Amino acid sequence: MSVHDARPIGVFDSGIGGLTVLRELAHQFPHESFLYLGDTARLPYGSKSPQTIRKYSEQNIEFLKKQDVKAIVIACNTASTQVKEAEFAGLPVYNVISPGSARALQLSPSKRIGVLGTRATINSQAYTHKILELDSEAHVFDQACPLFVPLAEEGWDSDPVTNLIVFRYLNPLLQNNIDTLILGCTHYPILKNSISRVTGSSIELVDSGEAIALWLQQDMQSGRLKKAEQSPRRIDILTTDYSAHFNEIASRILKPIHPDDVRVVDL
Amino acid sequence: MSVHDARPIGVFDSGIGGLTVLRELAHQFPHESFLYLGDTARLPYGSKSPQTIRKYSEQNIEFLKKQDVKAIVIACNTASTQVKEAEFAGLPVYNVISPGSARALQLSPSKRIGVLGTRATINSQAYTHKILELDSEAHVFDQACPLFVPLAEEGWDSDPVTNLIVFRYLNPLLQNNIDTLILGCTHYPILKNSISRVTGSSIELVDSGEAIALWLQQDMQSGRLKKAEQSPRRIDILTTDYSAHFNEIASRILKPIHPDDVRVVDL
Repeated sequence: MSVHDARPIGVFDSGIGGLTVLRELAHQFPHESFLYLGDTARLPYGSKSPQTIRKYSEQNIEFLKKQDVKAIVIACNTASTQVKEAEFAGLPVYNVISPGSARALQLSPSKRIGVLGTRATINSQAYTHKILELDSEAHVFDQACPLFVPLAEEGWDSDPVTNLIVFRYLNPLLQNNIDTLILGCTHYPILKNSISRVTGSSIELVDSGEAIALWLQQDMQSGRLKKAEQSPRRIDILTTDYSAHFNEIASRILKPIHPDDVRVVDL
Repeated sequence: MSVHDARPIGVFDSGIGGLTVLRELAHQFPHESFLYLGDTARLPYGSKSPQTIRKYSEQNIEFLKKQDVKAIVIACNTASTQVKEAEFAGLPVYNVISPGSARALQLSPSKRIGVLGTRATINSQAYTHKILELDSEAHVFDQACPLFVPLAEEGWDSDPVTNLIVFRYLNPLLQNNIDTLILGCTHYPILKNSISRVTGSSIELVDSGEAIALWLQQDMQSGRLKKAEQSPRRIDILTTDYSAHFNEIASRILKPIHPDDVRVVDL
């Protein structure tokens, strides 16, 4: 049995946010191939019922399995709240909630942790539950930031308007003396410059892509996940609906990564 | 045959935006009853395919017809782009595109007209086509404003952040010397204070609710639509999914109108 596995790692999201996770993974694992699925025809997941989000997530996983991936990364906070299994259909599955929560606790001396997310993710309390399950002494303070996704999609990062809105959302949270802040939506790393300008350097930011990369690294070391050989890799992006806006924003987010192919598929 | 008809006027939207139309109609027609349907379980319509938007709109109309309404107002720009009939299932139907386009041409001496809308509405070019169909000499300039809906839903009207974002979107449009501006999304009247602060008093704003009210008034005069008698009226709001956020924002938008009932229904 080979110690290597050249098959791609499957990554899915409802749309473009998960590309920040893909960028981070592609950067950290330069020999791994990736197959990204953006379920743009059915976005957003955030306003749908838990049953529907679960159904769509299962369909996405089954689709990626048929494309012969070796693991699944759920690069979407909303979908992650509905898929808690570490394994599905025989594949290792990585959601963003557990790695993000564990990473925050690792970085936080005071255990006073802030969480930013969409209204759906904050309402689900998924991070709060996971952090308190890992450390019942922790204190979690959360804030829904409904304007962050449209600001990220408009490409207004590092913009005075965005800085002002970030300040508006973060100011009440910062009153709680947090030392660590989870970016609980895969769109938010796009606004990282504006966010860190408001938090200053004394607050650690936890980004889903970086947190998941650590878990993949561990599993590659333990052998749960086999590495690819040091050979050229491919990055393929599939979407379920065509959108010129997706293509434009995708290349902006992925920079300097260039996908080998972007195409539309039917699930 | 009676000259009066006490049955309610049915109004539908994918969510809360259409409440600005309901508020205007309830204000202008104080004896008419209204039955509002917010299809919150399936929102947003803006990112869905034309076929799906058409199907949902037909289902909403059939549902309202079963509740015995006397007419249908489509208080949603996206749905209006897919239902162009003046009559459906034997009921008079009013969409927002035709009245808004006609009203803009009426108000504009220079025939230089601006249109604001969601990305989906602007991409559909529905206002541009309708205005040019009515007057081929007109010039139409449009601008998608993806941040306006989340700003309106956050309740940040008349806020410095909103004023800044309105200025950002409107500035290129104002270079074209428009004298009339269509608010081509039923959420946008919530931001009217910020918008008129940027446009100044020399540019006329066209609001879907006001434009549709004029058409209903005409049809009541011509007899196509029978008025209710001068008796107490009811305002009922139905939604397809429960949301505390909907209830909170609905009462803010409708003020000073108070609905008699708000409840969840299955279509």
